[in-house]
Amino acid sequence: MQKTPLYITAAQGNLTSRPPVWMMRQAGRYLPEYRELRKQYNFKQMMSTPDLATEVTLQPIRRFQMDAAILFSDILVIPESLGCKFDFIESKGPVFETPIRTVKDIENLNSDHSAQNIDYVYQAIRQLKPQLNALNTPLVGFAGAPFTVASYMIEGGSSASLKQTKLLMVQNPALLHQLLQKITVTTINYLNAQIENGVEALQLFDTWAGLLAWDDFKNLCFPYIKTIIQSLNNPNRIPITVFCKNTSAYMELLAQTGCDVISVDWTVNLPQLLKSNRSFAVQGNLDPHWLYAPHNILKDKIQLLLAETKPYQGYIFNLGHGLMPDISPDAVKCVVDTIKSS
Amino acid sequence: MQKTPLYITAAQGNLTSRPPVWMMRQAGRYLPEYRELRKQYNFKQMMSTPDLATEVTLQPIRRFQMDAAILFSDILVIPESLGCKFDFIESKGPVFETPIRTVKDIENLNSDHSAQNIDYVYQAIRQLKPQLNALNTPLVGFAGAPFTVASYMIEGGSSASLKQTKLLMVQNPALLHQLLQKITVTTINYLNAQIENGVEALQLFDTWAGLLAWDDFKNLCFPYIKTIIQSLNNPNRIPITVFCKNTSAYMELLAQTGCDVISVDWTVNLPQLLKSNRSFAVQGNLDPHWLYAPHNILKDKIQLLLAETKPYQGYIFNLGHGLMPDISPDAVKCVVDTIKSS
Repeated sequence: MQKTPLYITAAQGNLTSRPPVWMMRQAGRYLPEYRELRKQYNFKQMMSTPDLATEVTLQPIRRFQMDAAILFSDILVIPESLGCKFDFIESKGPVFETPIRTVKDIENLNSDHSAQNIDYVYQAIRQLKPQLNALNTPLVGFAGAPFTVASYMIEGGSSASLKQTKLLMVQNPALLHQLLQKITVTTINYLNAQIENGVEALQLFDTWAGLLAWDDFKNLCFPYIKTIIQSLNNPNRIPITVFCKNTSAYMELLAQTGCDVISVDWTVNLPQLLKSNRSFAVQGNLDPHWLYAPHNILKDKIQLLLAETKPYQGYIFNLGHGLMPDISPDAVKCVVDTIKSS
Repeated sequence: MQKTPLYITAAQGNLTSRPPVWMMRQAGRYLPEYRELRKQYNFKQMMSTPDLATEVTLQPIRRFQMDAAILFSDILVIPESLGCKFDFIESKGPVFETPIRTVKDIENLNSDHSAQNIDYVYQAIRQLKPQLNALNTPLVGFAGAPFTVASYMIEGGSSASLKQTKLLMVQNPALLHQLLQKITVTTINYLNAQIENGVEALQLFDTWAGLLAWDDFKNLCFPYIKTIIQSLNNPNRIPITVFCKNTSAYMELLAQTGCDVISVDWTVNLPQLLKSNRSFAVQGNLDPHWLYAPHNILKDKIQLLLAETKPYQGYIFNLGHGLMPDISPDAVKCVVDTIKSS
């Protein structure tokens, strides 16, 4: 029988001898071996072809031996499952054919919410399991939280202000809730299938929730995240993490969702949070811009962080947001090695 | 002798019968009378011509009778005073001729930090005073906080990620502090001149500070804001407000700057903050997207807010950020009238 992986121990709120380390977007464009594959396949092919998704998920684990692997996929598989057509345009991100703005748009979505039509994700999970088991590295599955997924569907792509989503919020909140409800049901089925196929942890990304006023977060994000967490068929109680930006503002609500781990952005005073009386484990929160620093400065920064976060109780090292494509793999190695040798 | 204006009473932390109301960017593009003037003058002419700045400052006061007027100007007068050349490009914002990135760039800045070369601002203040005094409406002066001003100079304009600024932060922090120091000295002289010329309150805008990790905020924002507040020649103790986004994360530090008022963004749970044991007055924090709502919904929203924030102790109604150009003046009127008739 294998030892419980460090990531799981920490996610369950326990003490660890050092913080487990992984990084959001650790599988991606900053890796030359990823860019090599991307020459032959576009992003959508990469995530929807199980062999490619498997390979890309494993790339950072081979190179850096992180303490957790995160499935290479995208939060927009849920709109895809619901029948939305979109494409990923280089340097622009996702672009939807028809943004969702009216009752008619919502009626046109698939009525099947089983998430069975995105089974390439489950196949990738099944392919990854034996290889990751051999390394005793847990696999983290994920989904977008309903508000963030809805915002892409409404905006028709990325948006810095979520103007269309907020217009719907103030002008037709019932319609917005109807959409959030459909996404929630599909996401529950999607995550249940991930659990059945073997993920050992889950993370919900509510990346754009940080643009909402506190009471709008309470109305549009909190209840749906809570419903998902409490509806999962999770017999082994695999740990569930919730991530959003501007985490400080919503911390109290996030803690009430029933999640095991809150993944905090870099604006959070991490040592203070770790020392506080809390009912959740904490993941985060280095600003990835520090990975542009000379390596001696980066190493000092990590060592200071390790000193300030001791003892490591329910603490998983991560970034405050994802790695940028122009970050050097050597910087990632410097961070992982400094933590692993602490 | 005139009654103390409601805005001043609240900013000093006292009880008011209703919250005073004004809005960030209340003088600006959403007003037809502003757009009319802009047909003849560009933005830079508007802010640097005292007659025009006076007129534009007064426009929203005439129309809506807000409880405070804010000087029509821009936080980039400080780079201008330091000798940086830039222009405002329609739909793009400010564009600097030479971004500040090297020792040489900093050495090329003006060595005169007296801020006397931007005296058109002081003249506008002198022109505004008699007209605002007649209405018993206080005039709020302002400046950008050093980090936000520095970020424009380093990025060469607006930036969503502050990448160049953060590169300097991790690669040459001494240079960044040198720039922050120069801006701080100039800003102290600038605000002292505003006080001498008659502003009755001041606000520091650290708009981009919200993109910083907690300890980077502590290093790059906090000491300079504190230095400014504590160095001002402020014999009548006019109230000083500090604004930044993602306010929840930095609230404790902001409170230690010595400011009188914290202007909070919409992610803050306002009723909870107002009820907390605090050493500062609070300004904020409606998400201006609510001004796109039908007026009956908007009115309900404001009345709920008024009920939740009672009794009004050290509370100034404002938005969580500035008004958008496509917001209807009628919506602004609805908000002001609902608050004034409460």
